[in-house]
Amino acid sequence: MKVNVIKNVLQANDIIAAKNRKVFKEAGLLGINIISSPGSGKTTLLEKTIPTLMPEQKSIVLVGDLETTRDADRVAPYAEEVVQINTGMSCHLYANQIAESLTELELNKADFLFIENVGNMVCPGEFDLGENVKVILLSIPEGDDKVAKYPTIFRAADMVLLTKIDLLGVLNFDLDRVMEDLRKLNENVPVIKMSSLAGEGMEEWLGWLKEQRNKSIGNQAKFITPE
Amino acid sequence: MKVNVIKNVLQANDIIAAKNRKVFKEAGLLGINIISSPGSGKTTLLEKTIPTLMPEQKSIVLVGDLETTRDADRVAPYAEEVVQINTGMSCHLYANQIAESLTELELNKADFLFIENVGNMVCPGEFDLGENVKVILLSIPEGDDKVAKYPTIFRAADMVLLTKIDLLGVLNFDLDRVMEDLRKLNENVPVIKMSSLAGEGMEEWLGWLKEQRNKSIGNQAKFITPE
Repeated sequence: MKVNVIKNVLQANDIIAAKNRKVFKEAGLLGINIISSPGSGKTTLLEKTIPTLMPEQKSIVLVGDLETTRDADRVAPYAEEVVQINTGMSCHLYANQIAESLTELELNKADFLFIENVGNMVCPGEFDLGENVKVILLSIPEGDDKVAKYPTIFRAADMVLLTKIDLLGVLNFDLDRVMEDLRKLNENVPVIKMSSLAGEGMEEWLGWLKEQRNKSIGNQAKFITPE
Repeated sequence: MKVNVIKNVLQANDIIAAKNRKVFKEAGLLGINIISSPGSGKTTLLEKTIPTLMPEQKSIVLVGDLETTRDADRVAPYAEEVVQINTGMSCHLYANQIAESLTELELNKADFLFIENVGNMVCPGEFDLGENVKVILLSIPEGDDKVAKYPTIFRAADMVLLTKIDLLGVLNFDLDRVMEDLRKLNENVPVIKMSSLAGEGMEEWLGWLKEQRNKSIGNQAKFITPE
């Protein structure tokens, strides 16, 4: 009986997610679902990514958190629009929370819609939000066993960012083991070694984002810089 | 309707949790539910704690993970008995998974029953397993905003361990901010600054564990060292 309940919730979610995906496409937005444990650096990544994309490309951010607006406050100075979604007791965002947020936004204002999911390696992987790509962050301090231990999310990844890579020398972390585990789950997923604070990997990450947007939306620029 | 389903699941869980708690008491075991994000150091804590308690006090360990037996394998050399519970897609352990495991164990063999929950800061806080105490780990690399962002779990904590404290000088982490946020949620919860690898905080942690067991079970020794 429990399984049926979960299935129905998932089915209802998927129907709404498909609608969100259509809205993104019509608005010329790439939807990016950013997933990781708490403290892997999702918000710092956005703080560094969004201003570097500007002024040619602009971003909207939806932030999921149990409580507080701390992450939304951090990205607010850079994004065109920010919505904080407080999930209360829920460990992930639902597609309908995204759908509700979309009605309040001027979607034509931006090229990228970043969704910072609730910090969690399990639940967010099971709920499609309508995104075009799932980006998974794994930070060096979390340890080199995490890919094997949280396979669902790494199987679903379109991009894996190894964050806080500057700590590789400070902490025990077997990079080869992580890559080996990852290749078993998701053979061709791209991996970028990043340090948002040091700027490492940023260029490659921005290149990938633009390429994904071109694939989904086409490469016409939405904002023409005034001559 | 969704809320009703969740309530029923929670109620059913709580009934089984109460039974588990009774079984622990009768067997003279302190039940410890260990909760944190992935990579905060739950398994390392157990690897260091269990041998230090021995030979006077012995431990059984139940480990929750989506897949793999990696954590169970790591504690197996030290514990009297270890059960790996694979949760599949579930982000937390349920009381009935604990109840099933208990039937397979010789509970009289041990003083402490450590339950290493699935790495997650949200879901495990909502499901009572029958434990006597909830121990929450927060590692320095996760960042100093996590107490405010995951209040449910910190509100429920009987002990907070600040792990990987040796990284305090290496990373930006405002300890005062964390303590201030924590005091708002849980005024009297004890906090220990720990480094399992460097041994810092270990004595205080072991003292607290023994004190909790005495409070719950009474202080008679289960194992008398042969004279």
